[in-house]
Amino acid sequence: MLQTKPQGLARKAARSTVSRVPAVVVRSVAATEQKTAAGAKPHNPPSSYGVFRLSYDTQNEDKSLTRNWKKTIKVAVTGASGNIANHLLFMLASGEVYGKDQPIHLQLLGSERSKEALEGVAMELEDSLYPLLREVSIGIDPYEIFDGADWALMIGAKPRGPGMERADLLNQNGEIFQLQGRALNEAADPNCKVLVVGNPCNTNALIAMENAPNLKRKNFHALTRLDENRAKCQLAMKAGKFYTSVSRMAIWGNHSTTQVPDFINARIGGVPATDLIGDMKWFREEFTPKVALRGGALIKKWGRSSAASTAVSVADAIRSLVVPTAPGDCFSTGVISDGNPYGIREGLIFSFPCRSKGDGDYEIIQDFLVDEYLRSKLRATEDELQKEKECVSHLIGMMGGSCQLRGAEDTTVPGEN
Amino acid sequence: MLQTKPQGLARKAARSTVSRVPAVVVRSVAATEQKTAAGAKPHNPPSSYGVFRLSYDTQNEDKSLTRNWKKTIKVAVTGASGNIANHLLFMLASGEVYGKDQPIHLQLLGSERSKEALEGVAMELEDSLYPLLREVSIGIDPYEIFDGADWALMIGAKPRGPGMERADLLNQNGEIFQLQGRALNEAADPNCKVLVVGNPCNTNALIAMENAPNLKRKNFHALTRLDENRAKCQLAMKAGKFYTSVSRMAIWGNHSTTQVPDFINARIGGVPATDLIGDMKWFREEFTPKVALRGGALIKKWGRSSAASTAVSVADAIRSLVVPTAPGDCFSTGVISDGNPYGIREGLIFSFPCRSKGDGDYEIIQDFLVDEYLRSKLRATEDELQKEKECVSHLIGMMGGSCQLRGAEDTTVPGEN
Repeated sequence: MLQTKPQGLARKAARSTVSRVPAVVVRSVAATEQKTAAGAKPHNPPSSYGVFRLSYDTQNEDKSLTRNWKKTIKVAVTGASGNIANHLLFMLASGEVYGKDQPIHLQLLGSERSKEALEGVAMELEDSLYPLLREVSIGIDPYEIFDGADWALMIGAKPRGPGMERADLLNQNGEIFQLQGRALNEAADPNCKVLVVGNPCNTNALIAMENAPNLKRKNFHALTRLDENRAKCQLAMKAGKFYTSVSRMAIWGNHSTTQVPDFINARIGGVPATDLIGDMKWFREEFTPKVALRGGALIKKWGRSSAASTAVSVADAIRSLVVPTAPGDCFSTGVISDGNPYGIREGLIFSFPCRSKGDGDYEIIQDFLVDEYLRSKLRATEDELQKEKECVSHLIGMMGGSCQLRGAEDTTVPGEN
Repeated sequence: MLQTKPQGLARKAARSTVSRVPAVVVRSVAATEQKTAAGAKPHNPPSSYGVFRLSYDTQNEDKSLTRNWKKTIKVAVTGASGNIANHLLFMLASGEVYGKDQPIHLQLLGSERSKEALEGVAMELEDSLYPLLREVSIGIDPYEIFDGADWALMIGAKPRGPGMERADLLNQNGEIFQLQGRALNEAADPNCKVLVVGNPCNTNALIAMENAPNLKRKNFHALTRLDENRAKCQLAMKAGKFYTSVSRMAIWGNHSTTQVPDFINARIGGVPATDLIGDMKWFREEFTPKVALRGGALIKKWGRSSAASTAVSVADAIRSLVVPTAPGDCFSTGVISDGNPYGIREGLIFSFPCRSKGDGDYEIIQDFLVDEYLRSKLRATEDELQKEKECVSHLIGMMGGSCQLRGAEDTTVPGEN
């Protein structure tokens, strides 16, 4: 399973070309090169770590273990030595997320600085003896790590430095997602599902998507599931009901403080949450801040950010795409707004209530009620996403955008970057 | 579910009495008081946190969710705001450990210093919406937190300060386990299973056991499962086979560098590991240090200790008691040596190869081959455990012990406290 790794000339060429041409040309340049690549395979798959070089042991393994397993999927994870990944990787490897019959190849991306830590993560995965974890590869080259990826979980992002505002963060992380989008475009499976966790996640997902034209636009997601989970919990507490009785809890728009946790369509024990709770003042004035500021409240108690529950929400977000949605329920995910039934401007990564047949695909639910109040909130988060898009226009080949977010109110969810 | 909490006079009396009488009397004093307690209930169950006050929502929950569930179990966890617990609690809550039909009440013990962090943990558990997690209680009083516990996972222990040797650590943590043993004795279910992770875990488990005569001696465990998992991985790598093909990998003795990873009885693909690998020099000189020093190697790479894989091994250790052992296989756990078939001195917590019917109980496997080489290794780890026991004689009501470990070689597993 170890392979020698000649430096692929074609890939080198692709990278240096891409960085010099105006971004607007990227899509077609990259697309052409991918066609060449499909024949020439200019990128190399990463080599496996340690014991994972031996992952299929047909002579020695009990066949009853592996007989009914599906084909192994490749799951690439960026920011793999960070705190969120340190929870998530073990959830993925356990079979809890993709299923107990789904063997997994984890492909872990770190940085030059975190190379040794990545090895530490791989060693802990070795020592955990997960039967379904058949391969682990580690590396710092996204072209290698995204090789053949069926899923790309993009957790890595640079935290904000002192004095940086959200506009700076958009730019700094946007560059990372531009590079990684190009790598996905060249290396990943064309049907790859991409879930962006690193902030600002909606616009990062947009940048990755626009730089990866070989992948389906529909398959790019930005994580708003933690917001949904937090909203369900807050509704449950206010109603005096347990959280398992809350359904149809949608988050609309951006993963920022302009997000819209939708109490209009939410149900508790099948009854509209607004009927059960009644207190519209609470819904309008307290509910949304409680959800959006939860991460900040938590960091005050805990002294560190909520890595574990973020990882749980990533696992939930994946499961929502590989397990059919319960009838009448929904899940929230930030996806491309093209052709959406709610009049949101096209070309944004916007969180909608969705449902899935469990095949990795999804559809935006059509029949959520949008009243005047909700409509005004949707407009505000839509406007913000449009402005974020214009701030990164140079990274997505868009003409004429100018960044109006400089000096704007900081809408980053507290407790995050 | 919220209860008022009058300070139980009987409990206060019990504690102050216990601390003044000689340790040797503890067992009978505590036993008497427990009898009183059974009638008077001097300790109060902890109150539930946040949304978990609403854990059974019979009016609003879909009955298909809860219909086939077992009775809720109470799982107490100490060191609950630490790194190992931060992984373990989410594994427990997910249903991965006790089963998908086993609702759980987590009872989390922290310290005065970590009170706020405990709240943070509880908030993250709320936000994770685990259906099986029906209650979470947090607190700093072990008498409250161990109330009715079916399981006590004792992770908390003080790390070694600068210049402290293992003898000091034994004493410092021994006092914690003496107190917690007494609390278990008074508050926990008499059938409670206790798993000690905090180091030095074998002797800590012994101290807790000797201070909790109302609980079954057999139900105290010290964690050697991480060592077993690491040993399986090292055997797999050396043999060039995947880790799933390794079975009967026992760890004997103390969780310290005197531990004995047993390559004599281990099998790979059903074949004796020694036949397959052949290289006895490697087994005798390299295998054991590779296992015992793995934590240190990992901390060098990773910059922090191996919390995730430790949590996985705790989950494995629990599962080994609640799921039947595969025919012919074993698992390792440190348990009381009374009546063991290998001639190990009685009254020690010693790791043996065990098997279980999955009912929470276990038996020491009788037929492992102990050759002369293995025998000499067992003696060494047995001697160490006896010396550790003598160092804590004042904590377990043993007469005449004197601590011979002062100035001895440090056998603490690197990367741990």
